[in-house]
Amino acid sequence: MTLRGRLFGLGVGPGDPELLTLKALRLLREAPVVGYFVAKGKKGNAFGIIEQHLQPAQQLLPLVYPVTTEVLPPPLAYEQVISDFYDSAALEVATHLDAGRDVAVICEGDPFFYGSYMYLHDRLASRYGTEVVPGVCSMLGGASVLGAPLVYRNQSLAVLSGVLPHDELKRRLADADAAVVMKLGRNFPKVYAVLQQLGLDGRALYVERATMANQKVVPLAQVDPQSSPYFSLIVVPGQRWQG
Amino acid sequence: MTLRGRLFGLGVGPGDPELLTLKALRLLREAPVVGYFVAKGKKGNAFGIIEQHLQPAQQLLPLVYPVTTEVLPPPLAYEQVISDFYDSAALEVATHLDAGRDVAVICEGDPFFYGSYMYLHDRLASRYGTEVVPGVCSMLGGASVLGAPLVYRNQSLAVLSGVLPHDELKRRLADADAAVVMKLGRNFPKVYAVLQQLGLDGRALYVERATMANQKVVPLAQVDPQSSPYFSLIVVPGQRWQG
Ligand SMILES: C[S@@+](CC[C@H](N)C(=O)[O-])C[C@H]1O[C@@H](n2cnc3c(N)ncnc32)[C@H](O)[C@@H]1O
Ligand SMILES: C[S@@+](CC[C@H](N)C(=O)[O-])C[C@H]1O[C@@H](n2cnc3c(N)ncnc32)[C@H](O)[C@@H]1O
Repeated sequence: MTLRGRLFGLGVGPGDPELLTLKALRLLREAPVVGYFVAKGKKGNAFGIIEQHLQPAQQLLPLVYPVTTEVLPPPLAYEQVISDFYDSAALEVATHLDAGRDVAVICEGDPFFYGSYMYLHDRLASRYGTEVVPGVCSMLGGASVLGAPLVYRNQSLAVLSGVLPHDELKRRLADADAAVVMKLGRNFPKVYAVLQQLGLDGRALYVERATMANQKVVPLAQVDPQSSPYFSLIVVPGQRWQG
Repeated sequence: MTLRGRLFGLGVGPGDPELLTLKALRLLREAPVVGYFVAKGKKGNAFGIIEQHLQPAQQLLPLVYPVTTEVLPPPLAYEQVISDFYDSAALEVATHLDAGRDVAVICEGDPFFYGSYMYLHDRLASRYGTEVVPGVCSMLGGASVLGAPLVYRNQSLAVLSGVLPHDELKRRLADADAAVVMKLGRNFPKVYAVLQQLGLDGRALYVERATMANQKVVPLAQVDPQSSPYFSLIVVPGQRWQG
């Protein structure tokens, strides 16, 4: 009987390959199979971060997102497509685990912080040994390049998705001492409007592709709403504590 | 004229020395002066994480917290003592910078996520070149060892301090899809009571010294409220998404 392989979720940080941890690097090098989520026809962000460390003997397991079109009647059809995709991705990973091969799934940022790895974990963790290596999340990569201390002392931090409806965003942002808004892209105009309504637009900072080679810090008022990329976020730092 | 030194804030992760990033390690090794906050008579948590990498030629700059007693009439006297301490710590660091020596201040977790480094940064960043290297924060170190995916899709995450008053904690926890409560210690009984009132005690997970050698995961109901240490946190993971 073959011993089952183990599943590793390796956080690889927000973009700069040097923000990989020693532990993620060690486990990456030891893994016979390296899995990663990727959009069709793309190289994959997480993959680009760790590519330089791969050995020829390592087997690559790209998990290619289905092309989802806006044509599907939302939201159920989309959710079904994605759910089926994660099912089949988990099956692919399980095939290796059953054959006794460890699989390291690399994840942009941290695996448990809005990461796709979570959907594999939820499907496989009850049946296979798993280990998650936390990573530097994009929120903190963003704060660092913005030079913006994020939360002081006993301040409350809200981490929000730009996909949230206008009113919910507004309510949550109004109530937070410090906030981060992820998933901007085409949600940018809505998020910006809310920040303006709350008088937070002067305090909020915006960054695209933080810590990546093509990182861009743009004053909020000068962001072109048409071209805000998926890999961007807004930081509303907590009020500086004078202590 | 000597060129001024640069100030580095290096996140060293939540405890496991292997959760240091490649970048923090490189900059740590290059630094002529290594600063760190530490309680009187202690070694310092961040220091213990990186000690093995230090070279004899590197100068150590411990920044020793003043012994604050409960005897001082709160809160102003305490705040004044702490504020004065950060002023003098910043002066000590500046002396090295003025002499042209780079100073790397090591920080547990991430420097901008409730880190003491922020108080140096706020005092020095306008006058000296600074660079902050983000680190794996304790919240994500905690989620990883708990095996708890933290936030799914468009869920909102609240990061809260256990120091907050009962009612504010309750309001914020009730409103969040997922939450992390830091700074437990003697705040534990209050936080636990709130989680029970909200029916969240079954979902909440508790960990002490996550990723450290003496890490302890304890079911919430079995935590000894008298002995919950400062380095502990509670994670309330977001509801699993079926997709
Ligand atoms: C699906 S979430 C993944 C988050 C990731 N697991 C983490 O720990 O940061 C994707 C969102 O993360 C944010 N993001 C990820 N990397 C980023 C970067 N380098 N710069 C700015 N935002 C980034 C963007 O807001 C993006 O919409
Ligand atoms: C002043 S904050 C520093 C946070 C740190 N900068 C970070 O990024 O995680 C101290 C709080 O962090 C949490 N903490 C730090 N390290 C921890 C660990 N290894 N395990 C559990 N909690 C930890 C505790 O809640 C503690 O009260």
